[in-house]
Amino acid sequence: MVRVMKIGLVGLGTVGSGVVHLLKRNRDVIIRKTGIDLQIVIACDLKINEMKHNIPNIECTTNWHEVVTHPNIDTVVELIGGIEPAFRIITESLKAGKHVVTANKKLLAERGKEIFHAANEAGKTIGFEASVGGGIPCIRALNEGLVGNRIASISGILNGTTNYILTLMEEENKSFSDALRDAQEKGFAEADPTFDIEGHDAAHKICVISTLAYGKWINFSHIPIQGISQISPLDIHFAHEMGYAIKLLGISKLVGDEIDIRVHPAMIHRSHPLASVRRENNAITIAGDMTGEVTLHGKGAGSTPTASAVVSDLVQIARGNISLPDTKSFTDTNYLSSEKRITRYYLRLFTIDRPGILAKIAGAFGKYDVSIASVIQKESNTDYVPVLFMTHRAVENKILAAIKEINSFDFVDGKVTLIPVEDSIAK
Amino acid sequence: MVRVMKIGLVGLGTVGSGVVHLLKRNRDVIIRKTGIDLQIVIACDLKINEMKHNIPNIECTTNWHEVVTHPNIDTVVELIGGIEPAFRIITESLKAGKHVVTANKKLLAERGKEIFHAANEAGKTIGFEASVGGGIPCIRALNEGLVGNRIASISGILNGTTNYILTLMEEENKSFSDALRDAQEKGFAEADPTFDIEGHDAAHKICVISTLAYGKWINFSHIPIQGISQISPLDIHFAHEMGYAIKLLGISKLVGDEIDIRVHPAMIHRSHPLASVRRENNAITIAGDMTGEVTLHGKGAGSTPTASAVVSDLVQIARGNISLPDTKSFTDTNYLSSEKRITRYYLRLFTIDRPGILAKIAGAFGKYDVSIASVIQKESNTDYVPVLFMTHRAVENKILAAIKEINSFDFVDGKVTLIPVEDSIAK
Repeated sequence: MVRVMKIGLVGLGTVGSGVVHLLKRNRDVIIRKTGIDLQIVIACDLKINEMKHNIPNIECTTNWHEVVTHPNIDTVVELIGGIEPAFRIITESLKAGKHVVTANKKLLAERGKEIFHAANEAGKTIGFEASVGGGIPCIRALNEGLVGNRIASISGILNGTTNYILTLMEEENKSFSDALRDAQEKGFAEADPTFDIEGHDAAHKICVISTLAYGKWINFSHIPIQGISQISPLDIHFAHEMGYAIKLLGISKLVGDEIDIRVHPAMIHRSHPLASVRRENNAITIAGDMTGEVTLHGKGAGSTPTASAVVSDLVQIARGNISLPDTKSFTDTNYLSSEKRITRYYLRLFTIDRPGILAKIAGAFGKYDVSIASVIQKESNTDYVPVLFMTHRAVENKILAAIKEINSFDFVDGKVTLIPVEDSIAK
Repeated sequence: MVRVMKIGLVGLGTVGSGVVHLLKRNRDVIIRKTGIDLQIVIACDLKINEMKHNIPNIECTTNWHEVVTHPNIDTVVELIGGIEPAFRIITESLKAGKHVVTANKKLLAERGKEIFHAANEAGKTIGFEASVGGGIPCIRALNEGLVGNRIASISGILNGTTNYILTLMEEENKSFSDALRDAQEKGFAEADPTFDIEGHDAAHKICVISTLAYGKWINFSHIPIQGISQISPLDIHFAHEMGYAIKLLGISKLVGDEIDIRVHPAMIHRSHPLASVRRENNAITIAGDMTGEVTLHGKGAGSTPTASAVVSDLVQIARGNISLPDTKSFTDTNYLSSEKRITRYYLRLFTIDRPGILAKIAGAFGKYDVSIASVIQKESNTDYVPVLFMTHRAVENKILAAIKEINSFDFVDGKVTLIPVEDSIAK
């Protein structure tokens, strides 16, 4: 016997139209596998009139209230993104007794506590597999596959735009700006790429998955975020020589009772699965105390991969499968302070090639107890020469103080580029 | 409110004792996440008397019938492996109204149809996440995360022993026998390693996951299986020069309405995530029509990783989450014939270094329409010189016929080693 789930869809952009396509194309196989027929009853989009001919037999509206209050649907799928009106669409749908599926990482990262509270109040489910890692079923892996584990850390390449750019810089020796232009031409970067390039998208995603992983409410504004615009091919080639790749990582770790969460470019040893993630792909490494590291790799964005994640949530809701941890047990987060964050660092700066200058820089490191493991000064025909440092393990706030001092030297051009070495993820 | 699931455990070996350890160590975190308390009520093992002191508050028996007929348990966990008595333990548990969780890939691969039939008859669930990929939640990814996809192919490094040996051959230039000895010393290979080395373990696993992926009953005896004992460091280094890695793969593909399923060493392009899977790790690439390739990587065996998979099944059963496709809809399999299997091949043989011999070998290829893309004859101080061939795309039964002829030449030492190039998985 086939059971029908009736769906209201808000947002017919890239992902929304992917959902429509998937449910049309794979309806038979979903019914065969699950006995469930997922039917879109009503769709809402501001440009719905241009799309109507593609979605026969579906009610069309430009007013989301008609979806939320529709008497004949079980579940609302929110795919417009952003904070408002997405927040109202989701909370009012829950209040109206409907389950919700969303891909909205920004909303979940910034207003997740209110959203989950509303779902608990309403006794309804909220599915958000599509909000992290696109077509990679990482939320489900965390909530179900690894449910028996204490999660020690999560490290993820969570943004395809930045990984595409870093791959081109590494493999094709392109500068950051040339690689960005290429990404824009291929459709892997927006016309205004700031949100991706500066790490905000990755930060939303590491926030959402970490909240679940540790059962703690993470305040998005507490996450230190650094993007990739300061990375040069020089850094990437030096990393390569040392056996490392540079990747933009979203990282969270449970250190005692404190959470260390951040987004920045990091050096990863070549032997780690994250180091070989190429182009627009995403990957997430979840370290459980029982499994060790589990890494999931795939397409982190795009129409049909993300639609696949939305549909997986719809099927689980239709099956009555609940896998979300009880968010009522979630606690607030204590954040690891900068004095407790200790790792090795790579630093690169440009300076005038003059006797005594290296001594002054080394002196600044010494003043803050930062011990240098190796230095390379490259020859150059320009006024400024690049100098690359690798430190021994150092305390973050001390290295930041040393860099502040070095940045103020008049013989240093621009600012020091700092990249932590992620030795903590398994080699 | 905490719900209790009462469990009977049959088999207290590596995985069974891992389950006991996990449930003791992580009881609190499982209750917090799920509201479920997983309690082992009774445990059965032939050597239970030696283990009793480690499992206080658990009934002990050496007779599995006492578990199956126990009036006070919901679910039986079968972890003894092999066909009998595991088959009877599982089917009688189902008949007695208990859910079943098992890690038994051999039983599911060889008798799966009967097992799933028994589960359907009894209206009970059977969980087997632990049977494929150890701690990697690949069964759940397939049944839930990728439920909206038609599965096009699955390619997996499904055996840690063989991957450990191949890694040592590649990275440390060890011979097969030296690498095997190292694996045995480190506990990654059995005293009798035949079952792993010759690909049978990988074949059981690709059979189980493929049955689910395509909704087809796959007859285990139809799977062509070739192990790694014929691989030499020569092959691995040649592959490396060409940009490939050699991995033992379990592969299944849906080609039209036919299934191509097999286990053999294969050349994989270095840029594919499977190529960089090192040492005892496993990884599985599932290609969905909507997601593209999703790859899952982690520990494919071992006490606590496999226990994590068992516990994930227990939690899902306790939650009432059913994700198994309806096996009543499964159909029998049509297997792709050797005439339809077309790919590029690598071949390596040893021959006497004498004029005219290469012409004779090339003649055998030509006779069966196998076109050679490149040949390398290496210099050697021994009586026989290695000759390496890369073919253009060729039909499998024709290349096998050519090899048969070449193997019969008196100037060829031993047999030709044949390794397909897996171009079909994405680069």
